[in-house]
Amino acid sequence: MHGDAIEQKLGYKFRDEGLLTQALTHRSHGSPNNERLEFLGDSVLNCVIAHLLFERFTALTEGDLSRVRANMVNQQSLFDVASGLELGQYVMLGQGELQSGGSGRPSILADALEAIIGAVFLDAGFVAASGVIQTLFDSVISTLDPAAVTKDPKTRLQELLQGKRMSLPAYSVVSVSGAAHDQSFRVECLVSAMSIQTFGEGSSRRAAEQDAAQSAIDIATAGG
Amino acid sequence: MHGDAIEQKLGYKFRDEGLLTQALTHRSHGSPNNERLEFLGDSVLNCVIAHLLFERFTALTEGDLSRVRANMVNQQSLFDVASGLELGQYVMLGQGELQSGGSGRPSILADALEAIIGAVFLDAGFVAASGVIQTLFDSVISTLDPAAVTKDPKTRLQELLQGKRMSLPAYSVVSVSGAAHDQSFRVECLVSAMSIQTFGEGSSRRAAEQDAAQSAIDIATAGG
Repeated sequence: MHGDAIEQKLGYKFRDEGLLTQALTHRSHGSPNNERLEFLGDSVLNCVIAHLLFERFTALTEGDLSRVRANMVNQQSLFDVASGLELGQYVMLGQGELQSGGSGRPSILADALEAIIGAVFLDAGFVAASGVIQTLFDSVISTLDPAAVTKDPKTRLQELLQGKRMSLPAYSVVSVSGAAHDQSFRVECLVSAMSIQTFGEGSSRRAAEQDAAQSAIDIATAGG
Repeated sequence: MHGDAIEQKLGYKFRDEGLLTQALTHRSHGSPNNERLEFLGDSVLNCVIAHLLFERFTALTEGDLSRVRANMVNQQSLFDVASGLELGQYVMLGQGELQSGGSGRPSILADALEAIIGAVFLDAGFVAASGVIQTLFDSVISTLDPAAVTKDPKTRLQELLQGKRMSLPAYSVVSVSGAAHDQSFRVECLVSAMSIQTFGEGSSRRAAEQDAAQSAIDIATAGG
């Protein structure tokens, strides 16, 4: 354990160093490990980020806040922050995980980071955890572009695919039902490059397409 | 507004009564309304409950903790707590919602309850919100049966369906692949009464069935 170095980067000194040790212990290394702390830390992180976004982006709706948070708290962003802390050097793994490169695996490092947040919360409470989270996510927060998630779903899906150099989604009307002035459209959205097929509904073709595009984005960005 | 009565039941007196008013204002009534507070309150509630469960059920894995929480924090349980507070009497709705019975609608009351939690958090911080949540969810917590969610998925799915007097799921092997000592089973689980079809995979037929049963439970209990 090199707790001091991590604590310096966190800007936080543990009262109970055992909590930090546990947070850095992967299940492959034995028990107690960081799995329960990760559960706790995940919820603390989501709560603190919700509060930060709530205070900072007073014009965003709850749907937009939720999307900004999902963009901000996911495996990739957690891995980036964990890499900044060089957690790979400190995380304790079993022999098998160690040999197969576990100390560089995004899921392992992201989980350890959440466990550390859970450990700070247990060690000193919500305000302390909130401070550490603000330190860790400072650069993520300051580069946030809420406009990017408040664009309409079709635009965002298109930009997402262009960013991956993938071909654009194909929309097609599956069915139209209802009387002339109360029609309901059902539209399919196909993102063949990602094997994603979604459906959307709405009172206009455009609304149904936006609905289907949002579902496709949710699937394309899930697992974070 | 009859803030006093609600505050008595919450065991909490707002410094800023405007926050309580906003928490009780449905979007149909105008703006500012409770939608952003609901986003915040939802994350505070999930965090506080995560902490309570973490401390109380020290033997549960993170997967079990997550399931117990999902069983505990859902629209039905929030509606039950909101009903105990008689929130329907206080929530402010637009004309249309009012006439269509919005003051008794589970989603509206559950959202208002989460917004109140968000309002307490903003008014006085995490510890105050945690205290209010413990007061509100006291009876839910004390009747929790963690054994009910730590049973294996097939057993839970069976009990879930029996509780609804529905016929039992049908499992069937879809495919078996791999060499003799490294086989992978793919199993279908059909819950015809709920139009649910899921698939599961595993290194044994039984493991694949459990996997498919868990997916079926997730779908059957989603939307809470």
